[in-house]
Amino acid sequence: MSKEITKEQLLQPVIILSQPQMGENIGATARVMRNFGLLELRIISPRDGWPNEKSTAMAAGAFNLMKPVRVFEDVATAIADLQQVFAVTARRRDMEKPVLFPDKAMEKIHLTSNTGARSGLLFGAEASGLSNTEVGACDGILTYPVASDFGSLNLAQAVAVAAFAWRNSIDTQISDESENLAIGNALATKQELAGMLKHLEGELVSAGFFHPPEKAPVMMQNLQNLFSRAEPTAQEVRTLRGVIKALSAGRGKRNDNR
Amino acid sequence: MSKEITKEQLLQPVIILSQPQMGENIGATARVMRNFGLLELRIISPRDGWPNEKSTAMAAGAFNLMKPVRVFEDVATAIADLQQVFAVTARRRDMEKPVLFPDKAMEKIHLTSNTGARSGLLFGAEASGLSNTEVGACDGILTYPVASDFGSLNLAQAVAVAAFAWRNSIDTQISDESENLAIGNALATKQELAGMLKHLEGELVSAGFFHPPEKAPVMMQNLQNLFSRAEPTAQEVRTLRGVIKALSAGRGKRNDNR
Repeated sequence: MSKEITKEQLLQPVIILSQPQMGENIGATARVMRNFGLLELRIISPRDGWPNEKSTAMAAGAFNLMKPVRVFEDVATAIADLQQVFAVTARRRDMEKPVLFPDKAMEKIHLTSNTGARSGLLFGAEASGLSNTEVGACDGILTYPVASDFGSLNLAQAVAVAAFAWRNSIDTQISDESENLAIGNALATKQELAGMLKHLEGELVSAGFFHPPEKAPVMMQNLQNLFSRAEPTAQEVRTLRGVIKALSAGRGKRNDNR
Repeated sequence: MSKEITKEQLLQPVIILSQPQMGENIGATARVMRNFGLLELRIISPRDGWPNEKSTAMAAGAFNLMKPVRVFEDVATAIADLQQVFAVTARRRDMEKPVLFPDKAMEKIHLTSNTGARSGLLFGAEASGLSNTEVGACDGILTYPVASDFGSLNLAQAVAVAAFAWRNSIDTQISDESENLAIGNALATKQELAGMLKHLEGELVSAGFFHPPEKAPVMMQNLQNLFSRAEPTAQEVRTLRGVIKALSAGRGKRNDNR
C-alpha cells in the first residue's frame, strides 16, 4: 500500500468515518472531499454495508477520482498507520486533550505532514457521534465555532467544513514552511503507541497497580492521553518500552522464582 | 419587518437560495446556518413550493430557531433591502467584478456591517447555478479554493462552507485561545516534573537501564523532553509516579531478598 502513497497524498489528512449510518452521507462526504482535493476516505463498519448505491448517487462521480475507499472493523486498525489523528466532535469531553478550532488544527496537520507524517480526521456516527474510547484513541479534538444551543452538524456538512478549512489553509502555510524543520521526522504511528501502552498495561496489571481493577480502563485512558499529547517519535516509543521493560524486569523474575 | 431586525442580525449576512430544487437542500441549508449562528434565510421561487416536508425533516429543528423564511419571486426583490451581495459561484465569469475567497469576503462583510449595512450571499440552483443576470445583480463573486476538475459543490455544502467561514472570521481571537481549553488549570510545576524524573532516574539506575552509565544524562534529557512536551498536570505527574513505583516495586523486593 505504501508504494501507492504519493507525496501529495502524504500531505493530506485521511478522512475516517466511524460507523456511518446513511449511504447518502458517505457519498456527500466523498463529493466534498474531492471538491477540496482530499483523496483518501476510510470507513469503519458502515451500517448498510459497502459499496452502497445511495452513496454512489450522492457522490456525483467523486469516488472514481479518489483512492479506493477502504473499510475497517475498528478505529485502532483504521488509524494504525497514521501518526496524528484528530477527533472531530462538538461535544465537550472531560479529557486532557488539546481542543483546536479548524485553523489551528490544519496548521498542526501541515506542520506534521512537512515531516513526512500522516494525519487523519475521525468523524463519528450520525446519531451518536464519537464514543469516549474513540476520542481517546486520538491526539486531539477538532471542534467548530458552533452555536452553543445547536451544535450538532450533519455528518457530511462536518466533513465539508474540515475539507474547506484544510484547503483554505494551504496557501497561508507555504510561506511558513521553513520554520518547521526542527520538528522530529519520525512520529510514532498509532500502532507503535498502542503497542507501548499495551505493554505498560500488562506490566501494571501484573504489578497490581489497578485497584480496584475496574479502574484500569479510565487510568489507561488517562495515560494514553498523556503520552499522545507528547507526540512521541518512534524512537521515543522504543525508549519508553525499554524503560517499562527495565523497571519491570526484576518483578518478572521474582514471579518466575516463586 | 425592519423593526424586528436586531443588531446581531444586522451583522450577519442573509443567505439567499435562488430557485432551489430539492427540499432536502433547503433543510440542510437551514441546519448548517443555525449551527453557525446565521438566522435569516430567503428563498427565490423554490421548485417544489414552500413550506416543504423534506426540508423540515432535514433541518433538524433549525427553522424553529431562526427568523421565518421569506419567499421571493426574483433576485431583485430578494436583495432589495441589502447593501452588499456576493454571488457564490465556482464558475468563471467574464465580468468586471471582484472575485474573493471566503476569508476576504467575510472581512468585507464585517467592514460593511460595522457601518450598519446589511450583506447577503446568493446561491444558485443545484443543476444550473447562478445565471449571469443573477451574478450581475451582485457586488462581487465569492468563490472557494476548489479542485479545478471537480469544482461543483452540493448546494447545502456550499452554504456550510460560507456559514463556517463567516463564523470563523468572527471567532479568530477566541480560536487562538482554544489550544489551552483542555489543558486544564493545574499544570505540574517544574519542581513536580523534576521530582518525577528524579524518581524515574533512580529506579532506572538501580535497574541497570543505563549502559554504559555515561549515557544516563543524555537519555534522561530525552525523557525529560518527552514528558515536558506533554505538559502534564500535577495529577498526571502523581499518576506517573504511581506507575514508576508499581513497576519497580517487585524489583525492589527482589533486591531486598538477595
